[in-house]
Amino acid sequence: MRLSLWRRYSFPASHRLFRAEWSAEQNDRIFGKCANPYSHGHNYELEVAVTGPVDPATGMIANLADLDSFVQRKVLDAFDHAYMNEQIPEFRECVPTTENVCRVIFQRLAGFPRAHIEGVRIEETGKNSFEYAAPSNP
Amino acid sequence: MRLSLWRRYSFPASHRLFRAEWSAEQNDRIFGKCANPYSHGHNYELEVAVTGPVDPATGMIANLADLDSFVQRKVLDAFDHAYMNEQIPEFRECVPTTENVCRVIFQRLAGFPRAHIEGVRIEETGKNSFEYAAPSNP
Amino acid sequence: MRLSLWRRYSFPASHRLFRAEWSAEQNDRIFGKCANPYSHGHNYELEVAVTGPVDPATGMIANLADLDSFVQRKVLDAFDHAYMNEQIPEFRECVPTTENVCRVIFQRLAGFPRAHIEGVRIEETGKNSFEYAAPSNP
Amino acid sequence: MRLSLWRRYSFPASHRLFRAEWSAEQNDRIFGKCANPYSHGHNYELEVAVTGPVDPATGMIANLADLDSFVQRKVLDAFDHAYMNEQIPEFRECVPTTENVCRVIFQRLAGFPRAHIEGVRIEETGKNSFEYAAPSNP
Amino acid sequence: MRLSLWRRYSFPASHRLFRAEWSAEQNDRIFGKCANPYSHGHNYELEVAVTGPVDPATGMIANLADLDSFVQRKVLDAFDHAYMNEQIPEFRECVPTTENVCRVIFQRLAGFPRAHIEGVRIEETGKNSFEYAAPSNP
Amino acid sequence: MRLSLWRRYSFPASHRLFRAEWSAEQNDRIFGKCANPYSHGHNYELEVAVTGPVDPATGMIANLADLDSFVQRKVLDAFDHAYMNEQIPEFRECVPTTENVCRVIFQRLAGFPRAHIEGVRIEETGKNSFEYAAPSNP
Repeated sequence: MRLSLWRRYSFPASHRLFRAEWSAEQNDRIFGKCANPYSHGHNYELEVAVTGPVDPATGMIANLADLDSFVQRKVLDAFDHAYMNEQIPEFRECVPTTENVCRVIFQRLAGFPRAHIEGVRIEETGKNSFEYAAPSNP
Repeated sequence: MRLSLWRRYSFPASHRLFRAEWSAEQNDRIFGKCANPYSHGHNYELEVAVTGPVDPATGMIANLADLDSFVQRKVLDAFDHAYMNEQIPEFRECVPTTENVCRVIFQRLAGFPRAHIEGVRIEETGKNSFEYAAPSNP
Repeated sequence: MRLSLWRRYSFPASHRLFRAEWSAEQNDRIFGKCANPYSHGHNYELEVAVTGPVDPATGMIANLADLDSFVQRKVLDAFDHAYMNEQIPEFRECVPTTENVCRVIFQRLAGFPRAHIEGVRIEETGKNSFEYAAPSNP
Repeated sequence: MRLSLWRRYSFPASHRLFRAEWSAEQNDRIFGKCANPYSHGHNYELEVAVTGPVDPATGMIANLADLDSFVQRKVLDAFDHAYMNEQIPEFRECVPTTENVCRVIFQRLAGFPRAHIEGVRIEETGKNSFEYAAPSNP
Repeated sequence: MRLSLWRRYSFPASHRLFRAEWSAEQNDRIFGKCANPYSHGHNYELEVAVTGPVDPATGMIANLADLDSFVQRKVLDAFDHAYMNEQIPEFRECVPTTENVCRVIFQRLAGFPRAHIEGVRIEETGKNSFEYAAPSNP
Repeated sequence: MRLSLWRRYSFPASHRLFRAEWSAEQNDRIFGKCANPYSHGHNYELEVAVTGPVDPATGMIANLADLDSFVQRKVLDAFDHAYMNEQIPEFRECVPTTENVCRVIFQRLAGFPRAHIEGVRIEETGKNSFEYAAPSNP
């Protein structure tokens, strides 16, 4: 049996989906309204899953205060109220779709020293969510 | 690591749980109020999970416009506002419990050409949800 | 200042929007998919608002056990899992739109002896809700 | 008694809160992270309240298809995926706080010909919502 | 027209509903499981409504940072993780039903210097909410 | 492919996180406000996942009435409105963190005779949830 803890964070941000090397027509065809040159934004709802043995003294997988300060430092300080295309270095090289945002945030969190980061889930709108995790994970 | 996209759809529909070969008493005992001969209905909240490699050009597993039009054509055109017992052919042979609705919708979606359909999740009411997926999936 | 208590209930039901004296074309034009002859359904989320003085001994406007049993007897016993067009007598004379469901449920509840029923709110789907209340009420 | 219909819409958009005539320090002090020059965004959840007599033939205050196409034309065509500071003319003269977004959207909708627009409610994030309505309204 | 801002806060707390001058039987009859001598608790979801003129320079009714620090100081510092019967002085004299919690929190907030506090709404569980407001308010 | 049914229950309860053998300072450092001697509480949202073959006659994995009465008897009768530290025997030996509540509830449910209990998920607040399941499960 495995016990996992999911912790939820939220940050507003903006992005634009387009490729500079494509024509405006091609960007529109692939990205639709998301290619709007002025950018648009979302409230990103982020859930981080953590697993590991439960400490018999504290009854916890990880202290939430430790996890919160790690996520704040590694992710929220940069992503909160950001225009991701310009203000998150990883998106200089790839389009800030939520697929890529998941991967980038997971990589930033992977080194959490107190427990194993299993995966991340991001809800971009009430209609879309994305999950990045090892295949046997939730 | 695996990246999955969950896309949410919603459709109202009605159904009746009963077996013609059972007596009214037996139907009542097994299905309770769901055996009401006049039918009753729900807002079915459907989530479809899709996985596959992220296209490096678009940053996407699959274009949502493609997925939406596939789900519309294969599922929503038939299920939206339907009385499932009579208007969905698969339920001529089995009771339209949400267990069976999950399986039927998964089978209708399995041939999506742009990515792998991992599973479907249906919330029948705020108290029940059902998931049909490969064992190692979310 | 006024203090109000909102209590939430939920019931699945089915309905069909149509008028027998209209042609199929006219029903389709006005009611769209809701005119499907086989009916369709929803999870109706009902909230009932109650107001009145707070009893200084109990600290309550009304005992929830009393309200729940009144709503059960007056509304849920009839509406839960019902096909409203046939099984709710009030809809023999009017179309079971949620506008009319609000009014009918309010009238059934108006006689609650322990406090004043201020209004009712019904969410038909995640996109629609209806409220029936005195003008100065929430 | 008054019957109201609330209809929900959703649109992602971006904005920046700042005044050109203020220093960067003053913008930061008043608007905090919302003054980020690159803009940020939200999923705006919009609810529109409509009231009026129920048509005895249809059982409806207003046909949702009429309301939807009016809101699409007057609001969503412009606001969906927009950078409000630049792409919504009303925000050339005022800061696109959600207070002002409420007022602007209400003014765009006020002329709905089929029923009375009572008010609008906008949820900017899970922690904030704003309501613009006549004083005796919900 | 009136513009209102609703801001959401959340705090876990515990309480016990009983009157010392009543017998155990009478407490059980009136308060049911809520009379459990060991106390029980809830996640209280609090919404505070604020109204007033929109400042033409800032586009805001009130700065959320000001409101948040006022609510923190007047309410959350005391109520967060509290056993209300013992740790909130106002409940030495009255039962901590959510009706009374609404009134007490409103009285603590009424002096907000930057705008008019219109009302408070508290969700005690997913099935109950309470609102304390002037009669013509939302 | 595997089909799972998730059923949702809710119970308010209270707890205190502390170890009698630790000083007040150590309890405060590890458990923060959760060490409040008076206890505090939450609305625990419990989801139970059940899997197994679908009965071809009923179309169901398990009859919800059977599952509900089992969960009521094994879990809710004890946990609903309880102070877990004192009223749930398993917490005489371990701290009632939600990690441990998950494990205890799973163990109480594991013997369900009609289908396989796959896992449990508990939402302690809107920001935290915990899942106890076999590694390849959702």
